[in-house]
Amino acid sequence: MPPGPISPGAITRQLADFAAGSQWRDIPAAVRREGVRGLLNYVGCALGGCGDEAIRLAIRVLAPTFGAPQAGIVGRLERCDPLNAAFLNAASANVLEYDDTHLPTVMHPAAPVAPGLFTLAETRGASGQALLHAFILGVEVSCRIGNGLMPHHYRRGAHITATCGIFGAAAAAGKLIGLDAVRMNWALGHAATQSAGLVESLGSMSKSIGVGNAARNGLSGAFFAEAGFTAAESAIEGKYGFAAVASDTVDFAKMTAGLGDKWEILANAYKPYPCGVVLFPVIDACLELRKRIPVPVGGIREVVVRGHPLLRERTDRPDANDGRSAKVSLQHSVAIALLQGAAGIAQFTDAAVADPAVQALRAKVTAEDDAAIPVEAAVVELRLADGSRLSEHVKDGRGTPGRPMSNIELDAKVAECAGFGAPFVDVPALIAAIRDLEALGDAAHIMRMTAPA
Amino acid sequence: MPPGPISPGAITRQLADFAAGSQWRDIPAAVRREGVRGLLNYVGCALGGCGDEAIRLAIRVLAPTFGAPQAGIVGRLERCDPLNAAFLNAASANVLEYDDTHLPTVMHPAAPVAPGLFTLAETRGASGQALLHAFILGVEVSCRIGNGLMPHHYRRGAHITATCGIFGAAAAAGKLIGLDAVRMNWALGHAATQSAGLVESLGSMSKSIGVGNAARNGLSGAFFAEAGFTAAESAIEGKYGFAAVASDTVDFAKMTAGLGDKWEILANAYKPYPCGVVLFPVIDACLELRKRIPVPVGGIREVVVRGHPLLRERTDRPDANDGRSAKVSLQHSVAIALLQGAAGIAQFTDAAVADPAVQALRAKVTAEDDAAIPVEAAVVELRLADGSRLSEHVKDGRGTPGRPMSNIELDAKVAECAGFGAPFVDVPALIAAIRDLEALGDAAHIMRMTAPA
Repeated sequence: MPPGPISPGAITRQLADFAAGSQWRDIPAAVRREGVRGLLNYVGCALGGCGDEAIRLAIRVLAPTFGAPQAGIVGRLERCDPLNAAFLNAASANVLEYDDTHLPTVMHPAAPVAPGLFTLAETRGASGQALLHAFILGVEVSCRIGNGLMPHHYRRGAHITATCGIFGAAAAAGKLIGLDAVRMNWALGHAATQSAGLVESLGSMSKSIGVGNAARNGLSGAFFAEAGFTAAESAIEGKYGFAAVASDTVDFAKMTAGLGDKWEILANAYKPYPCGVVLFPVIDACLELRKRIPVPVGGIREVVVRGHPLLRERTDRPDANDGRSAKVSLQHSVAIALLQGAAGIAQFTDAAVADPAVQALRAKVTAEDDAAIPVEAAVVELRLADGSRLSEHVKDGRGTPGRPMSNIELDAKVAECAGFGAPFVDVPALIAAIRDLEALGDAAHIMRMTAPA
Repeated sequence: MPPGPISPGAITRQLADFAAGSQWRDIPAAVRREGVRGLLNYVGCALGGCGDEAIRLAIRVLAPTFGAPQAGIVGRLERCDPLNAAFLNAASANVLEYDDTHLPTVMHPAAPVAPGLFTLAETRGASGQALLHAFILGVEVSCRIGNGLMPHHYRRGAHITATCGIFGAAAAAGKLIGLDAVRMNWALGHAATQSAGLVESLGSMSKSIGVGNAARNGLSGAFFAEAGFTAAESAIEGKYGFAAVASDTVDFAKMTAGLGDKWEILANAYKPYPCGVVLFPVIDACLELRKRIPVPVGGIREVVVRGHPLLRERTDRPDANDGRSAKVSLQHSVAIALLQGAAGIAQFTDAAVADPAVQALRAKVTAEDDAAIPVEAAVVELRLADGSRLSEHVKDGRGTPGRPMSNIELDAKVAECAGFGAPFVDVPALIAAIRDLEALGDAAHIMRMTAPA
């Protein structure tokens, strides 16, 4: 048994009771709004990722196992059974590292939770309001379990998006199919015994298997529970349960304290750029500076970035050689922001990295530590060939707690994602439909709007 | 990082090289023979379990996701895609607690490893020899990884049959589809990031999800690797890899020392009775005693069982109230062995537990600790109504290392299993085909022999 409260009580049962018993009227307006934003960001990210090489390969591998074409794959023509659809849509939503971030745990909650809900809408029917309610509850369950296991869980090697995301996937799907509290408890038990995913897999395609499985197996856990397939009732807190396996620093109280009063989705953030979060203020500063120099950009002798030591530690990578490593490269991020005036998906591709102009400019970028600068801030100074200097200080990078993404920025991100991965989508109509989700009678309409004509 | 050797080297790579590079001629004759016995025991157990309630429910849940009917489900008419077939056949083989036991780890290696191989034989073709070779290698990989993680891995709560079985499933499937060493390494990486299963789930149907997933996801890991889907190359030994997550007592040397010289399948045992291993000598003694008293059994005043303290600790359950708890009940096991002269699947059902004669006799059974008696031995004394006493001392219970199951006993077990779960099977023909597996051109023939007419 890990350390923690001696008598944690029936944690699994409390979470199950909460999810099964929650009523729509219990959900505060601000939480509902953040749920809509989370789903909008999810659909956008899935549209952006649906053409990625990992997704194309995964479809090729799984196609021979596809069941009847009941459920859609975001942005694609293929259709399949609900479980394969959940896997593939979760993988698409996460593959670009552009999805949401629950700041206290650095988990990405939507990719595991949302896909099963849309496949249920397609196969069994669901209103927009019911789907939104289930999504909010699923995010709540994932993030609360994560809160109770951090920091040791991730540090040991567990990829929390997958390992905790599966609980939210099970709870959300269980809610949408109307599981009672006993069956919801079993669904969480099935999630617990299927929880998997390694930090070691990040940086390879294998990451997508962990995230895909979280969505897939959370959904299947709800199906098993619905059929009366029993599970351990103390799957999380039991002596040989999930918490004991998952962390040496378990705090069960964090999993259940204030359930229904404090909502984790309010700590969920959306990335403005598909790269490491510490780079956000740096990119913001570069985009501001670019407005003050002649375009096309030339005559830059040196770029000096000052930031929290974590910035240099995580992102000082002058030699990033592909799109994936560029996502954590300060030098690449500065170069493309200054040269192209953007830092979207197209700026973090292999092709963007290979651009000689980018490579030339990134060689001029250096980083300096300044412990007085918080991690959500940065100072960028341009030293030009004529000897002049321009400086920009960003205190709260876009997408950080002090400067969350506005609705307008989120809409633009969704448009960018769709333009990259699924240009056939009618983006304004899709955004309008998701923003009005509470009033939508048939939530499957959203999936149909993402499909090629 | 867990304790253990400072520089473990490329453990994942070594295991992958071994599995990808192994030649049939490298497999010693005794290892081949044990491989055949392991597969025979697997098929028998799957036939015994294929009608279990958990399997019927699982099929009902998964049927809406079944892909094209390419692969069989042992003992059943339904056919489905390879991944669902692997899941269901692994669950069937393990659900009765009758499957093989790797004694050093108490893992059940065949249920995760074998199912994917038979589905591959059905969908892509495979000779009996190739299947046997892959099975032996899969068992080797699972058990070696388990050896390196025990004892902490299980004690913490990881259900080792599932958590380590998935590696063997991936390696075996990868071997049969001809993965090179690089792709075999990826297959093990995909296994690592999908490894899951909790001891807490034992005693509920949820256990079968963990075991089924090990087979399913090991097979899919091989498919992903085959397609070029990349994985972490140090998925087992890496800083954020499987070993760090799985155990505080990692001994990497145990995973790789003597690869190809020392074979773990030689430490694999087969259960004579579908119950806890500590009960084997007790049941043996009761079956012997029954030969010395009048049948039908009557006039027993008391039964006293003396054994290692572990026997009483694990199995002193006079009030077992269903078939599942009866499997770990000393009182039930003694009663049915004496009354029915057998301790097979039929003796550990809910119906057997409800029998008034069994309940009357089990109330007369008591256990005494004797630390001088080893765990594979037991002494049973009958105290009869006429004052006489009969005693039987079993030194090596059947199915323990000192008294392994003979081929004749194994054949009888397979016949019992088939008689219970799939009485339509031509058992002598099936056994003959498996015993002659090395010479069988089409291994899928075995699966066809298990199907209803």
